[in-house]
Amino acid sequence: MDLKNNIRVIEGFPKKGISFKDVTTLLKDKDAFKYTVDKISAYLKNRNIDIVVGPEARGFLFGAPIAYAIGAGFVPVRKKGKLPCETLKTTYSLEYGNDELEMHKDAIEPGQRVAIVDDLLATGGTTRSVVKLVEEAGGKVEAVEFVIELTGLRGREKLKGYDVNSLIQYDV
Amino acid sequence: MDLKNNIRVIEGFPKKGISFKDVTTLLKDKDAFKYTVDKISAYLKNRNIDIVVGPEARGFLFGAPIAYAIGAGFVPVRKKGKLPCETLKTTYSLEYGNDELEMHKDAIEPGQRVAIVDDLLATGGTTRSVVKLVEEAGGKVEAVEFVIELTGLRGREKLKGYDVNSLIQYDV
Repeated sequence: MDLKNNIRVIEGFPKKGISFKDVTTLLKDKDAFKYTVDKISAYLKNRNIDIVVGPEARGFLFGAPIAYAIGAGFVPVRKKGKLPCETLKTTYSLEYGNDELEMHKDAIEPGQRVAIVDDLLATGGTTRSVVKLVEEAGGKVEAVEFVIELTGLRGREKLKGYDVNSLIQYDV
Repeated sequence: MDLKNNIRVIEGFPKKGISFKDVTTLLKDKDAFKYTVDKISAYLKNRNIDIVVGPEARGFLFGAPIAYAIGAGFVPVRKKGKLPCETLKTTYSLEYGNDELEMHKDAIEPGQRVAIVDDLLATGGTTRSVVKLVEEAGGKVEAVEFVIELTGLRGREKLKGYDVNSLIQYDV
């Protein structure tokens, strides 16, 4: 299955110059959605993953079904102020200014094997923050999985030493 | 399995007087998470659901794996400005002021059978808005599924005529 047929590319969203990769057309197609979840799950299945971690909000869309498919738990990484208990926090830079991500302090037990899942790897800033949160909690990052990778933005360079994979590649 | 053991109740979040039901403790427990998804999926399985619709962001956490489990597509309902293509919009009231939800105009084909999934039924305002979006797109709401229902807030009254179910009930 060529998943690129299920990605809708929208020029100029959310602003001029960005070529936005819309995954909603993949999600609504039951066959493409199942294929995507199964493909990433097959890769993770023999790695004894305890926990899948996904960042808000599109990371939930793929991370939660993959966690279900491989029999793991799911841990959400959320934007500031959304999680009700004590959290680990990390700041990451956006094009203008900074933003903060949080994960519950007790979300991951030390030594647990973690797969990080998100829809898209761009510059890698968000994912680098998620790695940091997982490791601060004592988790072991076994794999970092994306549906889409924008190879021209070289996000992999921020994730050196980790097992990084993507199903679909675009230049930008 | 008594799922209430996996819900963490936090008093005073996000503000005084609210008894917040934290589902992150359920999600991170692989057995409780699988049980939750399987239980709702079993109910939906013989209803020929084409599309599961879930509102941002916690609706994604249960709606996406349930869609995967029953072989349906998933359609996200998002907050204003997040979806890149033409959308249907609906305004819903919060305690102070209003907020807007959106769904892609082409997300659902007329006549498709839809299950709406969210983590929690409180006053029913958000869900009522999601029903409206689905029906405006021509979808048929076959079931409305929640992990948790706060029965004392009587959200069901806003959803009369629909098949509404929840796995766990609290008064408020």
